[in-house]
Amino acid sequence: MEVKTPKGTRDSDPLDCVVRDYVFNILKSCFRRHGAVEIDTPVFELKWVLTDKYGEDSMLIYDLADQGEGEQLALRYDLTVPFARYLATHGLKKLTRFHIAQVYRRDQPYMTRGRFREFYQCDFDIAGDYDTMVPDADCLNLIVDIMQNLDVENFQIRLSHRGLLDGYFEVCGVPEHLIRAISSAVDKLDKKTWDEVREEMIGKGLEGESADKIQQYVEIKGDPRQVLMTLKENSNLMENEKARKSIEDMEKLVSYLEVFGIVQYINFDLSLARGLDYYTGIIFEAIHLDSENQGIRIGSICGGGRYDKLVGRFGTMDIPSIGFSVGIERILAIKKESYIQNRVSSTDAYVVGINVSLADKIRLVDHLRKSGINTEFAYRESISGRKQFEQANKKGIPFSVIIGESELESNEVSVKNMISGEQSKVPREEIVSYLKQRLNK
Amino acid sequence: MEVKTPKGTRDSDPLDCVVRDYVFNILKSCFRRHGAVEIDTPVFELKWVLTDKYGEDSMLIYDLADQGEGEQLALRYDLTVPFARYLATHGLKKLTRFHIAQVYRRDQPYMTRGRFREFYQCDFDIAGDYDTMVPDADCLNLIVDIMQNLDVENFQIRLSHRGLLDGYFEVCGVPEHLIRAISSAVDKLDKKTWDEVREEMIGKGLEGESADKIQQYVEIKGDPRQVLMTLKENSNLMENEKARKSIEDMEKLVSYLEVFGIVQYINFDLSLARGLDYYTGIIFEAIHLDSENQGIRIGSICGGGRYDKLVGRFGTMDIPSIGFSVGIERILAIKKESYIQNRVSSTDAYVVGINVSLADKIRLVDHLRKSGINTEFAYRESISGRKQFEQANKKGIPFSVIIGESELESNEVSVKNMISGEQSKVPREEIVSYLKQRLNK
Repeated sequence: MEVKTPKGTRDSDPLDCVVRDYVFNILKSCFRRHGAVEIDTPVFELKWVLTDKYGEDSMLIYDLADQGEGEQLALRYDLTVPFARYLATHGLKKLTRFHIAQVYRRDQPYMTRGRFREFYQCDFDIAGDYDTMVPDADCLNLIVDIMQNLDVENFQIRLSHRGLLDGYFEVCGVPEHLIRAISSAVDKLDKKTWDEVREEMIGKGLEGESADKIQQYVEIKGDPRQVLMTLKENSNLMENEKARKSIEDMEKLVSYLEVFGIVQYINFDLSLARGLDYYTGIIFEAIHLDSENQGIRIGSICGGGRYDKLVGRFGTMDIPSIGFSVGIERILAIKKESYIQNRVSSTDAYVVGINVSLADKIRLVDHLRKSGINTEFAYRESISGRKQFEQANKKGIPFSVIIGESELESNEVSVKNMISGEQSKVPREEIVSYLKQRLNK
Repeated sequence: MEVKTPKGTRDSDPLDCVVRDYVFNILKSCFRRHGAVEIDTPVFELKWVLTDKYGEDSMLIYDLADQGEGEQLALRYDLTVPFARYLATHGLKKLTRFHIAQVYRRDQPYMTRGRFREFYQCDFDIAGDYDTMVPDADCLNLIVDIMQNLDVENFQIRLSHRGLLDGYFEVCGVPEHLIRAISSAVDKLDKKTWDEVREEMIGKGLEGESADKIQQYVEIKGDPRQVLMTLKENSNLMENEKARKSIEDMEKLVSYLEVFGIVQYINFDLSLARGLDYYTGIIFEAIHLDSENQGIRIGSICGGGRYDKLVGRFGTMDIPSIGFSVGIERILAIKKESYIQNRVSSTDAYVVGINVSLADKIRLVDHLRKSGINTEFAYRESISGRKQFEQANKKGIPFSVIIGESELESNEVSVKNMISGEQSKVPREEIVSYLKQRLNK
């Protein structure tokens, strides 16, 4: 049997872990700058908690085996449903939280493009009853903050509204019972051609005439103010209650985005649908525009929307909520490429003993560590100086601290800068301050 | 249906997350001080990877349902077997790594005492072929470092050796095929009386005479040098090859522990057995001594041992390895009690608008955030000053930054220290430096 990780999963090596820490810390500071606190939930939920929340993707949920516990369990599929469950469990009426954790999907893995079955999501959500579009604007503002802090140049936020989508579906004659299915077909427009999507719609039972009307709408996109003008000139649409209300809300949202000074990042795009069942208001996704030109395709980095009816589905009161999820796997892959690889080891010093006892080495190692210097040594009684230097070099440790017979006698150590090769004698009582100064510790 | 987390699991609220971050950072700096790098592995492994590694506890493994993937999967039970699998998968011959992650056990939960089905382990291991007992001594040294950094006063490291255990079992006449079963009975001596354990041994097929001989050995414990002396005077034991070899190794280990200056923390205890199958050399566990006297029982905080044959069981070369796992759940519970609860929110400032537009508030919020001040505001067009101050207070945010008509006119803001109640006017261009100074940012 091949000794490997399960399909669609992979190990994280020390460099992966360093890069991940770095990116998570950026995200955490962005989330905190916008007033969020952190929470966590179990990796699995009671199966019924996840049921009927993800539309066609529900079949991708990992179930746990029934081992006679009397509970049906499933691995979390996203962090939004666990958040709604958290609010319901603890009877909270409002919470602005972030949550960074792995989620699980039995999707066809595409690992070279960053699609895994176990992957991190970094979610930010605002739950609570606030004024229309104010938290929505703050979410989009945070996304711009995140993109800029992650050094994602040339990004765009595609934005639409589920009410507007439902409204124009109605205007196009989509029957009530087909709305989610047609929505899910439209959602595929970023990967499929219109003809393929049209075929899927017809296959799902839609009239050809309706499909052709839909095509006119999905082509509407661009500057928010201009799209709003186009929509308001469409009297069929403005007569639809859902559409008219959504357009009013979008006007309010755009006015806030102008105050935040971020409207230039927004592409109001009526072909955006988003797959998940639970959205009720604005929906959005941030995409990297140059993605095709680079070695690694980034594509969509983050997506989310408003879901005012999800918490209420747990039998408690509805709590209006909005939020988004940052998918960092592709960001991590890019950052890893560009990361300076020569100091993954966070070790500061390697103690090299030459013709001294292991006890002498240990005493020096212990002194350095107790003073906050990350220190390694060869776990050997007898080993040549050359081999010890080789180890220090191979591990990318910046300083070797050398003790030999002469150093022991004069109560000194020799310090070798492993990059410059420079070597100097340092009195033993000054070694800690000597190293800390050079390590900027 | 009750909206809850699965049996034996729980949500982590913002305070839990803050305390966990704090404790993890302490552990990470201890691990790094001893030269370890971080790795991560998937939450589930191929089932066969975990099979036959955990002795009687194997039945506690969570299996995933068979959803037609052609792979049998199971949630990780500890971090040691995934580490061995990692070494085998990547063909590594040596690695000193730490790994902080959740593990899963279908154990009877005892949540008030910190026993959960999903819980964190923080593992440190040294894999590689080094001189006898040198990495072993460094592991024990690191445990002392960790205990001291976690402020665990009055702890003790119980220490023994699997070779010595097997040796004295042989001397007591335990048949080969019963050795692991009898070892697992001895392992229960910290929770059961000798009579109960004796009964279990007899039940497993051991002669009463052998059990009585074992009793004499399990009572040997104390200062390592004294225990070594006692053992060396026992000629029956010294004639046993395994026991004699282990005693020699222990002498070497104790000499290194003396150099590290930590021998006073060691209790050489022949009743220590540790349940897991894979140990081959020294075994140890760190316990908090005053545990019964406090509200929360800490008990065993950390445990581990040497496992030289585990990596080889994946069909690759054997890699001698030693390591331990820190169980932090009980530490977290104690730290949570003592944690200053009044600033779980990491928000620095709450912008209060009085008779100004939402746009005016947003502009100030945006300015503060862009300057690195974590800032919140009420997501409302119209809200009284009193309600805004209430929010800031309730969330424990240290400063309110107030704009009203007069402040807008004079291009100032008022800053209210929410703890002292003190309020002062600050020119708008100085607000960031004013806050940063008071926040020590």
